[in-house]
Amino acid sequence: MQELTADILSRVITPRKSHSHKGDYGRLLLIGGNENYGGAIIMATEGAINAGAGLTAVATHLINLTALHSRDPEAMFIDWRDQHLPELIRKMDVIVCGPGLGVNLQAKKVMNILATNVTEKQTVVLDASALDLISQDHQLIPAKGKLVLTPHQMEWQRLSGLRIPFQTDGANLAAFKDLLLGREAILVLKSNQTRIYDLFGHQAINPIGNPGMAIGGSGDTLAGIIGAFIAQFDYSFDTISAAVYLHSLAGDIVYKDNYVVKPTALSKRLPELMKKYCAKERKM
Amino acid sequence: MQELTADILSRVITPRKSHSHKGDYGRLLLIGGNENYGGAIIMATEGAINAGAGLTAVATHLINLTALHSRDPEAMFIDWRDQHLPELIRKMDVIVCGPGLGVNLQAKKVMNILATNVTEKQTVVLDASALDLISQDHQLIPAKGKLVLTPHQMEWQRLSGLRIPFQTDGANLAAFKDLLLGREAILVLKSNQTRIYDLFGHQAINPIGNPGMAIGGSGDTLAGIIGAFIAQFDYSFDTISAAVYLHSLAGDIVYKDNYVVKPTALSKRLPELMKKYCAKERKM
Amino acid sequence: MQELTADILSRVITPRKSHSHKGDYGRLLLIGGNENYGGAIIMATEGAINAGAGLTAVATHLINLTALHSRDPEAMFIDWRDQHLPELIRKMDVIVCGPGLGVNLQAKKVMNILATNVTEKQTVVLDASALDLISQDHQLIPAKGKLVLTPHQMEWQRLSGLRIPFQTDGANLAAFKDLLLGREAILVLKSNQTRIYDLFGHQAINPIGNPGMAIGGSGDTLAGIIGAFIAQFDYSFDTISAAVYLHSLAGDIVYKDNYVVKPTALSKRLPELMKKYCAKERKM
Amino acid sequence: MQELTADILSRVITPRKSHSHKGDYGRLLLIGGNENYGGAIIMATEGAINAGAGLTAVATHLINLTALHSRDPEAMFIDWRDQHLPELIRKMDVIVCGPGLGVNLQAKKVMNILATNVTEKQTVVLDASALDLISQDHQLIPAKGKLVLTPHQMEWQRLSGLRIPFQTDGANLAAFKDLLLGREAILVLKSNQTRIYDLFGHQAINPIGNPGMAIGGSGDTLAGIIGAFIAQFDYSFDTISAAVYLHSLAGDIVYKDNYVVKPTALSKRLPELMKKYCAKERKM
Repeated sequence: MQELTADILSRVITPRKSHSHKGDYGRLLLIGGNENYGGAIIMATEGAINAGAGLTAVATHLINLTALHSRDPEAMFIDWRDQHLPELIRKMDVIVCGPGLGVNLQAKKVMNILATNVTEKQTVVLDASALDLISQDHQLIPAKGKLVLTPHQMEWQRLSGLRIPFQTDGANLAAFKDLLLGREAILVLKSNQTRIYDLFGHQAINPIGNPGMAIGGSGDTLAGIIGAFIAQFDYSFDTISAAVYLHSLAGDIVYKDNYVVKPTALSKRLPELMKKYCAKERKM
Repeated sequence: MQELTADILSRVITPRKSHSHKGDYGRLLLIGGNENYGGAIIMATEGAINAGAGLTAVATHLINLTALHSRDPEAMFIDWRDQHLPELIRKMDVIVCGPGLGVNLQAKKVMNILATNVTEKQTVVLDASALDLISQDHQLIPAKGKLVLTPHQMEWQRLSGLRIPFQTDGANLAAFKDLLLGREAILVLKSNQTRIYDLFGHQAINPIGNPGMAIGGSGDTLAGIIGAFIAQFDYSFDTISAAVYLHSLAGDIVYKDNYVVKPTALSKRLPELMKKYCAKERKM
Repeated sequence: MQELTADILSRVITPRKSHSHKGDYGRLLLIGGNENYGGAIIMATEGAINAGAGLTAVATHLINLTALHSRDPEAMFIDWRDQHLPELIRKMDVIVCGPGLGVNLQAKKVMNILATNVTEKQTVVLDASALDLISQDHQLIPAKGKLVLTPHQMEWQRLSGLRIPFQTDGANLAAFKDLLLGREAILVLKSNQTRIYDLFGHQAINPIGNPGMAIGGSGDTLAGIIGAFIAQFDYSFDTISAAVYLHSLAGDIVYKDNYVVKPTALSKRLPELMKKYCAKERKM
Repeated sequence: MQELTADILSRVITPRKSHSHKGDYGRLLLIGGNENYGGAIIMATEGAINAGAGLTAVATHLINLTALHSRDPEAMFIDWRDQHLPELIRKMDVIVCGPGLGVNLQAKKVMNILATNVTEKQTVVLDASALDLISQDHQLIPAKGKLVLTPHQMEWQRLSGLRIPFQTDGANLAAFKDLLLGREAILVLKSNQTRIYDLFGHQAINPIGNPGMAIGGSGDTLAGIIGAFIAQFDYSFDTISAAVYLHSLAGDIVYKDNYVVKPTALSKRLPELMKKYCAKERKM
């Protein structure tokens, strides 16, 4: 079990090339935010934008358009009932689905559109409600493309059938293989010491983070950061590990002076932290 | 009559355990905010989130959804006419009811739903319009659960029948017993020197605070802080006293450099102040 | 002609008494903001709240509710078509009418409600479109109460008939008397050196301010500050002069480091400036 | 080919005269922002306001009103379907059209209204979708007035027919002449080294900027800054060059400490940068 250190950031966060444009940093779509949980998709979006996604679009309930744009004009919007959603999904590099999605019929419809439109080259990050929906119906797992699953322990229990006390590394990996063998898939199992697994046996543990982050929205923010990292860098065990580490590192910096780590406060620290740990820049 | 000092903060604000998650810091529901007073419930929400509530939901008029999420994506939303409100109430640890609630028929309906759904283990903080509604109709006092009442002097006059000049400690306590004997209940009587009473004879006075806080929204913010403290720590005389003291302390810090203490400015200081006064952290 | 100095601030901005509550700092209603100019009433509101009004309510087009609360939850809202508007007007200490009001039929209706409901003890500040409306129809001038008019030079031309080059002190005063003799009224004639007149012959000139403030919204913000000052302190030549001076002083401070003085940036400086110049506090 | 330096800022950004008012700094209208891309017109607006436009109005889809005012109350709003749009266009000094406009029927209608209402003295900045629309239909190029075109390389390919590798200075100028000979027109060809051309053979290259600016919204922000500069200063090769340089300079300052340059973060730096480089002020 590899213990993550700040080195993972310098390995993954490479300096941007001067001859580049926004398309080079990925097209990211975030799906989520129903009538009740619009804040969740906004927090995921703020994680993504601050972590450097080139182009960020959000598919959500129409009711969330204004709050989204009020906070984050950088994000494009699409009503998740819009008939162009399938077409938009196919144009993306990475899709993060789940924050504030809910589990009602509309959520299932959206998941189904996602599941049937993802192609080989795309990556889908499934988080929060999306994990509960695939727990209920494995048909909602996208048939193609690379996958990242980001359950917390209770979501993983529902998805894997493993009760929390039995979520050992061995059991987790076995359950993960049961679920997704033959796919390119990475599991981010969130807890106070988040663990990351792939199907080839790579494992990592994140030793940092703090209990001030125990607040609604922390996980949504992480999902956005992971999406942005894959969009900009690549789909790899290291890239996803770096996203997890960065999220906790930003949280620890906020926590130094604050009893509670608001997810929106955490996101604001990302651009400066990424700069600080960017590989080549540090050598200069 | 105990005079509160900063010691109350260090006694109450304990360091968070590393093996903890958002559920450990309470499920808090704030109810209020009609077509006219949406700002009040937003200010209460900002008090709660910045004071560290684990999960914060807001039941309010639909018209307030977007402003709430624009400012505070950390909060979940429910339309207060939603048929799932009773079910949501029953899942909460603490419910704060009143900021911007108003006193019309819809407000009474919501109060009635609250009154009939609260269970033994829950705490209800009644503030602002909720106090006026129970003045008119004692049936609207939740039949079960622990209570906190947070009237200012004029609201207490309407609720207790005691005119302001006659609001002595003895008279206050007697009226409070008349109203709620046999219940677990704490009274926070707001004035320029807020007093706190329980039914066992504990009394405390808050010597700090300042007249820059004499602006609409100060009380709403306090209600949110009290709710968050109960949700995270416990329901006790000390915990509620600490919330009152923290609110004034934050106000005093803002007032040092500002003629007026905007409630939203006060809330922003809470995370750092709680960190500063957190018991164990200070010893390290 | 008295030239204003910072002394006017220390004379007017008195320390708040510790035994005071929000009602002591005035009930202020701002009226304005149609479908096109919602930003104007928001900027006026931010001037008022940051300048210390105790209770601030806003009567505006329903479409502006959410943007108002997103920025300023401290403000209460009322749809200006609401049948309770007359009743609300009668409860206020000060009413500022005009920012973003427009001049269509709805605007006239609102002005008419205002004109017929204001009572002796109240003060009305007429700004922007409200001045154009009374230019067209003197019946829209409130029949009772104290008045403040805050035209810029072009609005004053339309109201007084005096073309800008002919707006000398003598001519201004004569036209002002023509318009409002027998009333308690103060004229704030805005230009790069704003002049203030009352009907008793008091005159003052504001020597500070800067051309970075030449941006839409500066005047709206001033109207809000004037309203808040009257609400908190009193209706007097000095109080209104202090509001004018403070607005320019805040603008000059922003201008020191900024080419343009955004009205919203100006408003943010008010609480600290008022603290700095508050009379008694400085002696301590 | 002239290489731009900071001198261009000091030449263009002149100190404001004390006897001036908001009308002296131009009337600017920004057109764009459909149901999906409301954020784009907001970012353009923030570029314009922070770069000092005297009066800023925004014609956009009604759905964007609230997010616009929540962020930027300084901006006036008009529904782009409003029958008064032609009249408003005719009152403006500068019109920026394109950010988030989209290319559907409604977008074409708006472009057509613009094309047929612009007069000799006005300047139109065409950006983003507006460039794609005129690529498809040259009739949508305003028949009168001065023009600025701000394509990135791919938009220029669609407009000029020149594939990116063939976009040499000579070819660019020839294509630009083909398109707009006989007009007053300036081309801002955006890339990692933006080039500026007029039809008289002036050419300039912007050597600064950075890949952190490769994020959706950078171009929208630049369009707003260009509009504000023309509105305040003049329509000239230098003025537009200064706007381009300032945009990159602000981006470089943000990039020093941040891995990604959020357009909204860039805009916030403009007022202080303009102050710093303002010609006369520096000599004092």
